Amino acid sequence: MARLGFLGLGIMGTPMALNLVRAGHDVTVWTRSPQKCVPLAEAGARAADTPAGVTSSCDMTFAMLADPEAARAVGLDADGAVAGLGDGRGYCDMSTVDADTSRTLAVAVARAGGRFLEAPVSGTKQPAEQGTLVILAAGDRSLYDESGPALDTMGKKRVFLGEVGAGAHMKLVVNMIMGGMMTAFSEGLALASDTGLAVPDLLEVLAAGALANPMFAAKGPLMAAGKTAPAFPLKHMQKDLRLALALGDAQARALPTAAAANAVFLRARASGLGDSDFAAVHEVVADRDGV
Amino acid sequence: MARLGFLGLGIMGTPMALNLVRAGHDVTVWTRSPQKCVPLAEAGARAADTPAGVTSSCDMTFAMLADPEAARAVGLDADGAVAGLGDGRGYCDMSTVDADTSRTLAVAVARAGGRFLEAPVSGTKQPAEQGTLVILAAGDRSLYDESGPALDTMGKKRVFLGEVGAGAHMKLVVNMIMGGMMTAFSEGLALASDTGLAVPDLLEVLAAGALANPMFAAKGPLMAAGKTAPAFPLKHMQKDLRLALALGDAQARALPTAAAANAVFLRARASGLGDSDFAAVHEVVADRDGV
Amino acid sequence: MARLGFLGLGIMGTPMALNLVRAGHDVTVWTRSPQKCVPLAEAGARAADTPAGVTSSCDMTFAMLADPEAARAVGLDADGAVAGLGDGRGYCDMSTVDADTSRTLAVAVARAGGRFLEAPVSGTKQPAEQGTLVILAAGDRSLYDESGPALDTMGKKRVFLGEVGAGAHMKLVVNMIMGGMMTAFSEGLALASDTGLAVPDLLEVLAAGALANPMFAAKGPLMAAGKTAPAFPLKHMQKDLRLALALGDAQARALPTAAAANAVFLRARASGLGDSDFAAVHEVVADRDGV
Amino acid sequence: MARLGFLGLGIMGTPMALNLVRAGHDVTVWTRSPQKCVPLAEAGARAADTPAGVTSSCDMTFAMLADPEAARAVGLDADGAVAGLGDGRGYCDMSTVDADTSRTLAVAVARAGGRFLEAPVSGTKQPAEQGTLVILAAGDRSLYDESGPALDTMGKKRVFLGEVGAGAHMKLVVNMIMGGMMTAFSEGLALASDTGLAVPDLLEVLAAGALANPMFAAKGPLMAAGKTAPAFPLKHMQKDLRLALALGDAQARALPTAAAANAVFLRARASGLGDSDFAAVHEVVADRDGV
Repeated sequence: MARLGFLGLGIMGTPMALNLVRAGHDVTVWTRSPQKCVPLAEAGARAADTPAGVTSSCDMTFAMLADPEAARAVGLDADGAVAGLGDGRGYCDMSTVDADTSRTLAVAVARAGGRFLEAPVSGTKQPAEQGTLVILAAGDRSLYDESGPALDTMGKKRVFLGEVGAGAHMKLVVNMIMGGMMTAFSEGLALASDTGLAVPDLLEVLAAGALANPMFAAKGPLMAAGKTAPAFPLKHMQKDLRLALALGDAQARALPTAAAANAVFLRARASGLGDSDFAAVHEVVADRDGV
Repeated sequence: MARLGFLGLGIMGTPMALNLVRAGHDVTVWTRSPQKCVPLAEAGARAADTPAGVTSSCDMTFAMLADPEAARAVGLDADGAVAGLGDGRGYCDMSTVDADTSRTLAVAVARAGGRFLEAPVSGTKQPAEQGTLVILAAGDRSLYDESGPALDTMGKKRVFLGEVGAGAHMKLVVNMIMGGMMTAFSEGLALASDTGLAVPDLLEVLAAGALANPMFAAKGPLMAAGKTAPAFPLKHMQKDLRLALALGDAQARALPTAAAANAVFLRARASGLGDSDFAAVHEVVADRDGV
Repeated sequence: MARLGFLGLGIMGTPMALNLVRAGHDVTVWTRSPQKCVPLAEAGARAADTPAGVTSSCDMTFAMLADPEAARAVGLDADGAVAGLGDGRGYCDMSTVDADTSRTLAVAVARAGGRFLEAPVSGTKQPAEQGTLVILAAGDRSLYDESGPALDTMGKKRVFLGEVGAGAHMKLVVNMIMGGMMTAFSEGLALASDTGLAVPDLLEVLAAGALANPMFAAKGPLMAAGKTAPAFPLKHMQKDLRLALALGDAQARALPTAAAANAVFLRARASGLGDSDFAAVHEVVADRDGV
Repeated sequence: MARLGFLGLGIMGTPMALNLVRAGHDVTVWTRSPQKCVPLAEAGARAADTPAGVTSSCDMTFAMLADPEAARAVGLDADGAVAGLGDGRGYCDMSTVDADTSRTLAVAVARAGGRFLEAPVSGTKQPAEQGTLVILAAGDRSLYDESGPALDTMGKKRVFLGEVGAGAHMKLVVNMIMGGMMTAFSEGLALASDTGLAVPDLLEVLAAGALANPMFAAKGPLMAAGKTAPAFPLKHMQKDLRLALALGDAQARALPTAAAANAVFLRARASGLGDSDFAAVHEVVADRDGV
């Protein structure tokens, strides 16, 4: 049986690693704060002192880190993941990073004699717990195939997208569509209220038709109630819109509705909603007393 | 058993009336071109010579007409539907009309001693055939309740929204959201292609996540293939966006992303795509050789 | 010497009529509130009891009325302007009205045997006082030529645009450009402040370059000081943007930046700035505490 | 009399340096292609072999280079401008660069014992020839004051904006306003044509009113004629809009109309108009056959 490593035990990483352990895999973990390893150890995982300690002792290692800076540090530091790679051992970074960071890691892993897979996920805390993430993989095809059983334990769906960088791009495209759907939804809710329609009626109508989707179903009632549990922070949604627009700019691709959505999210950020859930954008859309 | 009338046997009306007949209702029909009554007669419906002939002999009459002009003419002409109403008999107009047209009909029906229900539908030809329309009703509550069995034969879902005009407004709100989702989707498809991602991969990722919805699932493969069967003409989508923006304007409600989406649909209309399906908007979004 | 009539002695009409009197013209006036005729009478004008009383006794009559409703009433009522026309006498409506109102008046004037000129103006109170309005004329060419001396007394510039309706359209086009320039200016002021630049420096730079224009020069210091004297109410600017967008829609013309500007003006209107000067739009652009 | 240096003899630099020589200044020049020094030498300038050769022999040296890369290379290379500085000699970079490049140069100049001034200009070829540039200076105040006579020879207006970086930001703000004015103007021209108005009439009306500005006056007739001499390339205008939006993003400042303008310029760039004058954006605005 393959020995699996896991680096990064945060909100996402902990349930993902737990799912691997509970599925019977042999798992070795590391995270920056050693006490966060306790739940994993109790579930049956080993713990290592450094990222290199994990990668040198495992056939393939998964990483789920907070941001590109963390992904670079854990990967490339002196006792980082790359330092423990070699002999074709695999490194699969599931963090959400930009394409440049992925490519930098890919080059370093290749130089060390390892294999690299970029595999950011679509989905937040609950899908991580339930093992229903959508995994956007790109890079080494053989590693993708060999890591299939582990990926299928963490997610319900995985796609292989080609060269390193494609996973990051796919995530931006999906999040850009998500941002546009959220502003369209927010404007619809506001116009419904303006014209005296009951928001629950609108949600019921949407749920019954061709536009029905899990996001409207989950967020709609919370938005109507003014309660938006922070599953995906608004400032991250706005950052992804900005990055998607920059990607479009580099391709001379006009994205006028994404640009309009971004302007609305920027107003929300300027209004102090950056740490709220991205659905809180509806508060600036529905606002009547802006000045 | 209630005697039911049905006015207007076009693409939508014919399957709706057929569903009523096949469900065992006693149905009398009228439409402007008598030969269009043949399939209904063969299925067991009676035919009348005028709209008033239908409404005077039925407990409640449904109408499905092409546009506000037709709805006014069929309702208000000398031998129109209103002329046959009285004694609380019901008139339920399911055509897509503006709130003013609905209110005009409602006043005329009330003066004649009838009861009025506005009930536009969400859904096109296929849901009409399958009896899976979503019905947006407003007006006389007692008529809504009494017409329930008939409405449930034609649709899978119905909501009662309050005063006459609310059905028209709800339809605009839903279509405004639909327009915004379609431009967001189109921009996502374009950016995916620009960055070398495969469109089927994007569709697969969307289908697996929180944004999954029947519209993306149905239209996506057709859009990718450049084939968009005209289920809902683009010029009607743009008209609904315009009307929703006008409704917002009357309420001093800024709808910046709907306005941006409308501008994109206008470019599509100017490019000769008005009679194509509204999903053809992606052609101007993805265009690279505009000048 | 031609006998001139003048109908409507409001903020604009009073100085315009005064300029005619002071230039030595023989002027007969009427306005809804007789006491408003006093300053004109003191300056040497005659007064009549009804619009028809003016038009029946003058070679050509000018009108400057508040809105389309007033223009229709004063023109078409029983003792209105049209009732006194005939024998080729001229009627020149300088009010800001829509093209339909102009065309309705033109038809009525023609039936009465008169000649019609539409002549809305660009410019507000101060240019009216100084005789420096810009006059956008359309309709009867011979009347345009004959009214030249009078028009040149009221304005510094006049253009003949063709058929009735062209004056209204030209005014919408100019005001749409004005709205777009004002939002671009407001966003520039906001970004300058955000990045620590001094607004007076920006105004000085703009004044020295290719973008220098009287509007920036006049409004900029007031906007920076948060004082915007209501010369052109914001709600009228927003209405003109809406009408220009509707005109574009009828032509299948996408106007994406005008649509974005309109959304910003709508937010300003929703924020209670409708009766402020249109330059107050910068308050919602610069706002930091919207929610 | 101060000895002046000048680095970079391109389209802008050549006339600027010539103006200094013709005004009687003692000028030493350098540019990458020695033959480009000939016209300056004929007018009376000396030539040096390297940038350091200029800065070591002059009291203050001006630079006008193509882009940030050239500005860094000429300033920081082994025999670059900084290598010849010391003893408080001045270096005034008039190139259009980003704030980071300016700050990098400022630090290097200070370490070498020189004084630094950032001084990008507003205006293109013709104002450079006529000595009517607008100079946006920031950095060392004493150098700004001492270089006054030289700056006043090259420009008609100069402002001192504070710390290094402010000149770059001011230029972005001005160009963002310029981009917004140009799209508003283009949409106005398109709507005028759509409604049958003559473009020369619109230009005449604009020239007479509060919106009159040199840019509309200069570009309008060319745009109407479909001829737009490339004074400021469209791709540079779009780049400046992108950078201004990025600056706004960093400040959480929504700039919705600039974002809409940027989308229009992006479409123009995608249509192959990147090397045309930025006024060519009107071609995609006015386009009717986009698909």
